[in-house]
Amino acid sequence: MRLKINKEISLPVFLQIKDSIKEQILSGILPAGFVLPPERKMASENDVSRTTVIRAYDELKALGLVASYRGKGTVVTDKKEPSHSENPNVFPLSWYPLFEKKLGNVSDTITDLMDVGSRRDTISFAAGVGDPSLYPIHQLQAIQNEDTFNNDVLNLSAVEGYYPLRESLSKLMELRGVSTSAKEVMVLSGSMQGIDFAARTFLSPGDAVIVEEPTFLQAIQCFRAAGARIIGIPLDHGGIRTDVLEAQLGRYKPKFIYTIPTYHNPTGIVMSMERRMELLRIAYKYQVPILEDDPYGEISFGRQKLPPLKTLDQYGYVIYLSTFSKVLFPGMRVGWVVAPEPVRKKFVLLKQITDLHVNTPGQFLLDRFLREGHYEPHLRHELTTYENKRNLMAAALKQEEGLVTFDSPDGGFYLWCRIPYNIPQKQLLSLCASKGVLYTPGNVFYPQESDGEHLLRLNFTYESRERIEKGISVFMDAVKKLSRHNTKMNPIIESRPIV
Amino acid sequence: MRLKINKEISLPVFLQIKDSIKEQILSGILPAGFVLPPERKMASENDVSRTTVIRAYDELKALGLVASYRGKGTVVTDKKEPSHSENPNVFPLSWYPLFEKKLGNVSDTITDLMDVGSRRDTISFAAGVGDPSLYPIHQLQAIQNEDTFNNDVLNLSAVEGYYPLRESLSKLMELRGVSTSAKEVMVLSGSMQGIDFAARTFLSPGDAVIVEEPTFLQAIQCFRAAGARIIGIPLDHGGIRTDVLEAQLGRYKPKFIYTIPTYHNPTGIVMSMERRMELLRIAYKYQVPILEDDPYGEISFGRQKLPPLKTLDQYGYVIYLSTFSKVLFPGMRVGWVVAPEPVRKKFVLLKQITDLHVNTPGQFLLDRFLREGHYEPHLRHELTTYENKRNLMAAALKQEEGLVTFDSPDGGFYLWCRIPYNIPQKQLLSLCASKGVLYTPGNVFYPQESDGEHLLRLNFTYESRERIEKGISVFMDAVKKLSRHNTKMNPIIESRPIV
Repeated sequence: MRLKINKEISLPVFLQIKDSIKEQILSGILPAGFVLPPERKMASENDVSRTTVIRAYDELKALGLVASYRGKGTVVTDKKEPSHSENPNVFPLSWYPLFEKKLGNVSDTITDLMDVGSRRDTISFAAGVGDPSLYPIHQLQAIQNEDTFNNDVLNLSAVEGYYPLRESLSKLMELRGVSTSAKEVMVLSGSMQGIDFAARTFLSPGDAVIVEEPTFLQAIQCFRAAGARIIGIPLDHGGIRTDVLEAQLGRYKPKFIYTIPTYHNPTGIVMSMERRMELLRIAYKYQVPILEDDPYGEISFGRQKLPPLKTLDQYGYVIYLSTFSKVLFPGMRVGWVVAPEPVRKKFVLLKQITDLHVNTPGQFLLDRFLREGHYEPHLRHELTTYENKRNLMAAALKQEEGLVTFDSPDGGFYLWCRIPYNIPQKQLLSLCASKGVLYTPGNVFYPQESDGEHLLRLNFTYESRERIEKGISVFMDAVKKLSRHNTKMNPIIESRPIV
Repeated sequence: MRLKINKEISLPVFLQIKDSIKEQILSGILPAGFVLPPERKMASENDVSRTTVIRAYDELKALGLVASYRGKGTVVTDKKEPSHSENPNVFPLSWYPLFEKKLGNVSDTITDLMDVGSRRDTISFAAGVGDPSLYPIHQLQAIQNEDTFNNDVLNLSAVEGYYPLRESLSKLMELRGVSTSAKEVMVLSGSMQGIDFAARTFLSPGDAVIVEEPTFLQAIQCFRAAGARIIGIPLDHGGIRTDVLEAQLGRYKPKFIYTIPTYHNPTGIVMSMERRMELLRIAYKYQVPILEDDPYGEISFGRQKLPPLKTLDQYGYVIYLSTFSKVLFPGMRVGWVVAPEPVRKKFVLLKQITDLHVNTPGQFLLDRFLREGHYEPHLRHELTTYENKRNLMAAALKQEEGLVTFDSPDGGFYLWCRIPYNIPQKQLLSLCASKGVLYTPGNVFYPQESDGEHLLRLNFTYESRERIEKGISVFMDAVKKLSRHNTKMNPIIESRPIV
């Protein structure tokens, strides 16, 4: 723990240490239960004597802010408790030493980003959700008004999912070119649960897992929480660089390859047909399963659709995930997996020890929505709107030639943009936020968050046309301002191939 | 792998081995991807020569049922694939060697038990659910008919839960004697998710965790999946044996103590006030957190209620879990946790990488149900019905004096029964099942499933009065029949203190 210490000023160093720690405790940076570094370590890290640290710690103890326990060290106390405990032998619990270590790998970035949608006044290009004004509220309300509740819908349902919905999903899968039966489909609490289940099914600490670089940030967090080594493979316009992949597979023995082949998040790239075949060939050769994540496959403005890897796979190597969150709405938390039987069995086991099954009323409602034929018309209406919004956002970004560059994708939810090299991401992010506009910085999509400094993701589906115009205008003004302001900086040459 | 081999009969041993394995493959016991034991191991385990095993494996290969791969051994093939692969270099994937080892600790018992509720004709005393005929369908339908769907309800909501529901839950907690704010309550996808999150927050493989013995079977499975050492502490009429607990705490350094203090599952025991204070004293002394699971606390037919441990805990050691599944209905999958801030933060992180948040429409509906004042009247009505059912089942079991013994609990969902020592559980279970009656055998509630042989759990809430009478009559007939039949067996003296 490095503290701000100034040996030039007259305040004794032990009091500077005391004040610095006191401030961090009172502001909540050091929470109750936090164990301060041992005196010797604190001394060497701050280049002061051990006696100085001991005096500082004693001051903090006198204030009741910390306490020492045998075998635990010096621990921040819970200030909500009375400072004079009724029972002097009882101490607040030090939670931090009890926590499992791997979870510490998960960064708090996602907490901040999740917050984003909740503020009404800000214009958010950060979220990964569709346009709420398109949610099929009337159809859903109509289904609900038909006395939907009965004993079965409120009771426990099968772990694998409500059977009629599994039937409807297998029909939906047929339209995507995946021939499957209801029994092979398992309903999940969002497709993200499938990523977590895959991590828990395959990954022990230290195991390698392959991801595209950049990739879906929650997948990175999830693999981190499993203690995995995350190996990123770069993308080009045809998708994952299979030449780089094959070279890496020789070095690592990954447990699986995680890929978003169609309208990739965050880049919008569609893996070419050749690359799909090549990826499968490599998977077969090295006997590595593929976890195919397909939330955006149907959000396609183009004429031609490529089949999912699951369709092309003749040997049962692909675990396929999808969700209702992008095409319909995300609040119901319903996704699904189509997987080979041994994998499905593990997922069933995990479902039983986590949340038992997906909420039955939600499954019932979605099944009726599909059976009553609302899905396809809803999707078509959505596609028209989203294509218009993409055009609008792209045009607004291009008004200032060459300042912000991107490849316009023919589907998905995002524009993946490059900003000038002389603009530090943090400056742009906070300038935009101060003007009420949010976006997602590129670094969170990289396993090493030091990458992606001059990249960012703009969502074009969530906000209204008016707010997209207003928000992009604010964003471009900020880019222009910082670009001019920093004009004397030398451009930094990046060696990493980007998108 | 031990096979049935009879060296006395004329069929050559290698063909017996081939047939035995073939049968297991075709019946699905050995699934595609299963790796057969190496020849040498298979030979020694069945006391035959290695050549015999090689001949048997060759026969299976000729049938296309197994295939050998370098470095993988002999693997069961996927019979759905064409036996002559188009590409002779591509092999079906061997999934089993790829799976994470810890999950293998989870037994399949729960899969079978979950199945139980799904058959209409059988009378089930096995499930842990309330009476579906009491579900508050009319009130829920009334709430739904009021145009419940809007953009907010279908959109992503906060990871910690829908804020109005958290407010309603904090009021509900006040009625239970736990003073808390909405911010300290986090909504979960069932209280079981809280058990899983606690396991993921605290347990590394090899860590010890304390449970009551017997205890909730999914908790056992969940701690097994985390690779934990599960230390069972016996119960008596006053709850967990704190004297035994304290002795064990010296030996093990458990990460937490999991307890169901009120109307314990499966025994129905209520931890006494003295024992509650003693348990807290021990937790403070050894600085071990307590995970308090309280699904049944409100299902109380008695006059006097004891406060949750969370109420008595003055030092923030208790993580409190509860659920709507028992008092209302289980299909919505909504539970909650009240926990100290450092723990809640970890749970929020886990929620973000698993299912993001609890389905918003369900949270919305439950909040309205609570705010409109339906909860208390519903609970009171339920308690009258369940007390009657308990009386009915208890009386029916007592008709044959002393054959099946139990302590009648004044709350909860279950009677925990002892059957005569000369009745093997498996015989009784299958005799009852053949007559269309299901119950839960005692062993699944013990960390070592060899325990609980003469104990079983009967749920008295789920079935109707008529079916309880009919089912218990079938059950008692089966007990009587097996008891007479096995009368010459010596009683087995068990040394373990039971309930």
